[in-house]
Amino acid sequence: MTSPIDFYFDFSSPYGYLATARVEEVAAKHGRAVSWRPTLLGIAFQKTGQSPLISQPVRGPYFKHDLERMARDYAIPFVWPENFPFHSVAASRAFYWLDDQDSALAVRFARHVFQNYWGEGRDVAKPQQLADATCDALGIDADAMLTALADSAVKDRLRAEVDQALAKGIFGSPMFDVDGELFWGCDKFGEIDRWLATGGW
Amino acid sequence: MTSPIDFYFDFSSPYGYLATARVEEVAAKHGRAVSWRPTLLGIAFQKTGQSPLISQPVRGPYFKHDLERMARDYAIPFVWPENFPFHSVAASRAFYWLDDQDSALAVRFARHVFQNYWGEGRDVAKPQQLADATCDALGIDADAMLTALADSAVKDRLRAEVDQALAKGIFGSPMFDVDGELFWGCDKFGEIDRWLATGGW
Repeated sequence: MTSPIDFYFDFSSPYGYLATARVEEVAAKHGRAVSWRPTLLGIAFQKTGQSPLISQPVRGPYFKHDLERMARDYAIPFVWPENFPFHSVAASRAFYWLDDQDSALAVRFARHVFQNYWGEGRDVAKPQQLADATCDALGIDADAMLTALADSAVKDRLRAEVDQALAKGIFGSPMFDVDGELFWGCDKFGEIDRWLATGGW
Repeated sequence: MTSPIDFYFDFSSPYGYLATARVEEVAAKHGRAVSWRPTLLGIAFQKTGQSPLISQPVRGPYFKHDLERMARDYAIPFVWPENFPFHSVAASRAFYWLDDQDSALAVRFARHVFQNYWGEGRDVAKPQQLADATCDALGIDADAMLTALADSAVKDRLRAEVDQALAKGIFGSPMFDVDGELFWGCDKFGEIDRWLATGGW
């Protein structure tokens, strides 16, 4: 089977950022492409009663420590942005707007957003901040992006993606859909690797 | 360093059961002993606002599937007991009562409880059920165990262990303390293995 691995994440999710350092490598090892699917976890949290991990009592300090430990292990830059969590709706809308034109550019955009926010702590929440952080660097027309972000068709596009993710049972970031099997968390990369190598069990 | 790995779990936790299939092997590979520390997650849940994973909306079906998938991967028997979740206070008190006499027997007892409950679905919640399931099989004096389970000193012993676990930040099952570093979940075995191999990062 050669269907792509669906990679679900929220731009505001630190574990989602960590996953970007590993997901392509694991997929490519088994001849798989990766379909990047940003979603809005806040909407899932309303259904699950959850909240951002690092804001939770008792659990928060563990996840903060775990994230910093994993970022060192992954050897990627990692900071705690001042505006955490941020409302990732603009970044997610821009992603799908780009994805419908050039999916490779959309992935470069996603990596750039993550790098700016989680690697450098730069605020990319508002449309203008997002355009400033990404358009010149990636050769995207800033006026076109800002217009698109206010377009109801672009808003509907994201809403449909979020609904599809919810319908599939996506409740966290990162989550991976490997031939219909869901895996939650960067800690699953080893298991996904074996699943792809063996065809599952 | 040769300090033991503290292994925290709740007898009512399916992931805690899965962990018993791997924890000794990972520790022994690096010359480490394992200190088994049953605790009561219900008390941690009051502080964290969490509930048993498989009871949670949206998340529950994922964790149920994940557990069954991992049990096949670990090649251990796994069933869904009718009385889930069960109040694991009697099993936990009995564990520490045994641990103070013979720590190897306490580990055999813990494995036996897990095997009865998660491997066969046998109800081991009440003291008499617990004694029936374990004492003859392990050569434990059933009358002595039943007397101990009602002893205030034995109750205090468990309460102190639960308090210590909470103070350390234990909020889930399994959790592992490796030289002061906490790791949550069976999915961390690979990372723990590398941590012990390298001395950490």
